Amino acid sequence: MRRIDDSRFAAAVHDGWDIGGHANGGYLLALAGRAMAEAVGRPPLTITTHYLRPAPAGPCEIDVTTVRAGRRLATATAFLSMDGNRVLQLLGTFGEQSAGGPAAIAAGPIEVPPYDACTAPPAPDEGPGPAMMERLAIRLRPGDEGFRRGAPSGRAEMYGWFAFADGAPIDALGLLLAADAFPPAVFNTDLPVGWVPTVELTVHVRGTPVPGPLRCAFRSRFVADGLLDEEGEIWDGSGTLVAQSRQLALVPRG
Amino acid sequence: MRRIDDSRFAAAVHDGWDIGGHANGGYLLALAGRAMAEAVGRPPLTITTHYLRPAPAGPCEIDVTTVRAGRRLATATAFLSMDGNRVLQLLGTFGEQSAGGPAAIAAGPIEVPPYDACTAPPAPDEGPGPAMMERLAIRLRPGDEGFRRGAPSGRAEMYGWFAFADGAPIDALGLLLAADAFPPAVFNTDLPVGWVPTVELTVHVRGTPVPGPLRCAFRSRFVADGLLDEEGEIWDGSGTLVAQSRQLALVPRG
Repeated sequence: MRRIDDSRFAAAVHDGWDIGGHANGGYLLALAGRAMAEAVGRPPLTITTHYLRPAPAGPCEIDVTTVRAGRRLATATAFLSMDGNRVLQLLGTFGEQSAGGPAAIAAGPIEVPPYDACTAPPAPDEGPGPAMMERLAIRLRPGDEGFRRGAPSGRAEMYGWFAFADGAPIDALGLLLAADAFPPAVFNTDLPVGWVPTVELTVHVRGTPVPGPLRCAFRSRFVADGLLDEEGEIWDGSGTLVAQSRQLALVPRG
Repeated sequence: MRRIDDSRFAAAVHDGWDIGGHANGGYLLALAGRAMAEAVGRPPLTITTHYLRPAPAGPCEIDVTTVRAGRRLATATAFLSMDGNRVLQLLGTFGEQSAGGPAAIAAGPIEVPPYDACTAPPAPDEGPGPAMMERLAIRLRPGDEGFRRGAPSGRAEMYGWFAFADGAPIDALGLLLAADAFPPAVFNTDLPVGWVPTVELTVHVRGTPVPGPLRCAFRSRFVADGLLDEEGEIWDGSGTLVAQSRQLALVPRG
């Protein structure tokens, strides 16, 4: 990524981060989020993106506008464009968590079998390209990978682990990627859903992960009227919630 | 609300929709969402707002930019400003649900005692002003209103019913209001939290309510490091989920 001026960044949607020619939504969010974080000088705390059109591989530009910069938080809008067409439109607030203070955690870490007991997503016909498969070391809960063999679990859930293949630490931008790197949870139902174009994705960054793979849980509870939700929780190895996500996606017919 | 031109609207933050002088977040979202819906000619499907500063009563302006208008969906950004200062920054996609198609609902309607068995929020010292109390007919689950008497339930939950006092039907804009019209769920814990300034609120409109009060459930599961989440579900009387919400808010100390 190259900074053109205070508010504009030149970058590239790299080949191989796509599924059937459309770049992964988490990858695009992390790319745009990185430009926004650089422009405001703080890490993402909550960021929303709307996906306007599919992104092929190729050069892109991110335009950032800071709408408020306070002592603790800064809010910015941005869009990512390719060939002059907007692909992502974003809104985020940036800043650090403030350690300590009142705390109440009403849920424990999600339960996932150990990393080595989980399985890599099956090599797909229409699945993520080589770069994504080589750079990430995602593991799925046994059974949750069955959809590719025509044996969906029957539950709209996708549980597992997220890590970088080289073991690199996962920062706030990595969490944005992790929030949309798993196969859609709805693939584990019997519904005739072949792809799930995201309309909107919001990620709340809730902590800085300790080193090691992250426990991830994604589920869709409401598939109806051409739309579905997908909620995600991401926990680190110390038992801390590090991110929450939710998206609204289209359910194309047939 | 008065349309100034294609993209600008003049409106007012009315007196009495405030809590301690700060206009209610759902009210402001509905106000800005109405301008955005008018500008793009479609109802809100998913809308995110970031709150930049408190809004006193007074005149405001909403500036809308349509970033994509497709056959089914349109995406727009907007900001609401007062005296030239941005108060809300918004991003939304607008359009209709598309009835039918694949469906899978993994959760039933939330359980709330009957409307008449629930209680009006207690008259508060620092609570919503007269307009909000007169226009809305919110009822809280017995026990969930105890926080005002110094008897919080101990659970970060706020369940109850939402209706307009005059029984008016609740449309998509009404759902935006309902998504942030209840007292914060965290008030039902023992934490020393006196107010909860919202950073970000996202609402997904999932259906058109049938006439009658709406069942609402709000809960905070993760209060930590100066931030909290609050998730909401809104169901209508026919047992249909009509909206989902989530917000990230600050937890001021002490």
